[in-house]
Amino acid sequence: MSHRPLLSNASVPLTKEVEVMDERGRLSTISIPAERPLTLYIDKRELVTLMTLGGAPESLILGYLRNQRLVKAIEDIEAIQVDWEVEAAAITTRNGIADLAERTSKRVVTTGCGQGSVFGGLMDEVDKITLPADARLRQGTLYKIVDTIRTQQSIYKQAGSVHGCALFSGDGEMLYFVEDVGRHNAVDSIAGRMWLDGVRGEDKVFYTTGRLTSEMVIKGAQMGIPFLLSRSGTTQMGHMVAEKLGMTLLARCTGKHFLALTGKERLIMEPHLADVLRVA
Amino acid sequence: MSHRPLLSNASVPLTKEVEVMDERGRLSTISIPAERPLTLYIDKRELVTLMTLGGAPESLILGYLRNQRLVKAIEDIEAIQVDWEVEAAAITTRNGIADLAERTSKRVVTTGCGQGSVFGGLMDEVDKITLPADARLRQGTLYKIVDTIRTQQSIYKQAGSVHGCALFSGDGEMLYFVEDVGRHNAVDSIAGRMWLDGVRGEDKVFYTTGRLTSEMVIKGAQMGIPFLLSRSGTTQMGHMVAEKLGMTLLARCTGKHFLALTGKERLIMEPHLADVLRVA
Repeated sequence: MSHRPLLSNASVPLTKEVEVMDERGRLSTISIPAERPLTLYIDKRELVTLMTLGGAPESLILGYLRNQRLVKAIEDIEAIQVDWEVEAAAITTRNGIADLAERTSKRVVTTGCGQGSVFGGLMDEVDKITLPADARLRQGTLYKIVDTIRTQQSIYKQAGSVHGCALFSGDGEMLYFVEDVGRHNAVDSIAGRMWLDGVRGEDKVFYTTGRLTSEMVIKGAQMGIPFLLSRSGTTQMGHMVAEKLGMTLLARCTGKHFLALTGKERLIMEPHLADVLRVA
Repeated sequence: MSHRPLLSNASVPLTKEVEVMDERGRLSTISIPAERPLTLYIDKRELVTLMTLGGAPESLILGYLRNQRLVKAIEDIEAIQVDWEVEAAAITTRNGIADLAERTSKRVVTTGCGQGSVFGGLMDEVDKITLPADARLRQGTLYKIVDTIRTQQSIYKQAGSVHGCALFSGDGEMLYFVEDVGRHNAVDSIAGRMWLDGVRGEDKVFYTTGRLTSEMVIKGAQMGIPFLLSRSGTTQMGHMVAEKLGMTLLARCTGKHFLALTGKERLIMEPHLADVLRVA
């Protein structure tokens, strides 16, 4: 059991009802997802403001600090206190963060939703990452994962306009499911949960509804996860980074369909399963 | 005719062919959109690295400088030279940018795709914006716009995984259409074109395939555009900001369907048109 920082358990409504008028002038009410600012203060110094759904703020902050490499070990974090009243989060570290200003100065505005800004040096790290060559994923497990997502209760089904991310075990059991207005927040929230629970990525499968842009692939790699699945597509850099890392990238995962882009050797193909009718 | 800075006309492939394997083990080749870094240097000082499709880098940079409020007037920009060989853009200003470091220090990591980071003070500006109350949009014009987008040649149709944005005149003529891996890049590219051509937003209609998050709505408002249309949905903050600004927000615009969320009084409803069969 890894060290657990003192965390608040802040909750806030995730949807809002608004009145709409359709093409025939009919009025009705729909749900839309929340989107709210959360300003992070590290040891009382303002770091950044994240725009988030607000479903898992403490995990989001943990994952943000981890993926931005602002904090090396979770032991360095003493407490995270989220207060939605003031839309702020107080992060207390054990020893402070060295040269924070300098480390947050180099900025990359990325393709990704949500966590659009990443502090520099991401690509430098990629070279240091090795993913397990012997990890395998069965086509049947892939279908189990896609079907689990399909039947998952979600803000998306209720209100749309959010991205979902999930972490699965190698045999297709869902460990975490997080949604946010930006898919990068969802990724970071998963990374935060993994950090908190001491879960390693080497035998896991990561699923996202969002596109597999370079930053998404890099974040998957940072979590040490060999399999990255998406309902959506990928980009040239996402593809290039995955190829460089030997990550298994699967796009367009819906129903029985998928496209394996990189790391095909990790797939255990069971093509006959593609003929099995999907359980409604 | 407004001042035109000296601009390069850099071009680069927007798609790449990659080999994929499907669920039956069949190999084929698909196109994926490009995604490449473009590092901006203002008067030889590094500003930021944008991840972009690369279709309209000069317009993107112009719009970025405008929407981030780094440059007040286009007259202050002497030249923008994009060099894909080194993935860099040299921006030459007439008088330099005062306290650049200070002005780029306060960061908001937004929900939006692509242009995830906005320098502070966006919301402060919102209060100063007024949109024309007398602007009107006919339902028939809305349908003309949606159909124009539907039939538009695009990277999206060819390779997927990009967002499109377009600017239309009040009677539904398309003025600009830009795609990028991040929808905020696409918005900024449109803002850049408008700046370059001296086009005002007050009688225009803005269309995006992406979600109407707070930052998208704020950017539409910064361009002075009263109508914001999306194929997708909106978020609570996008809705709140549009309501505050009295902007007309239309979501789920596909075929004959749409949902008017705010500023309904600007719509000239022609509900009988919802019954007309769509021209294939």
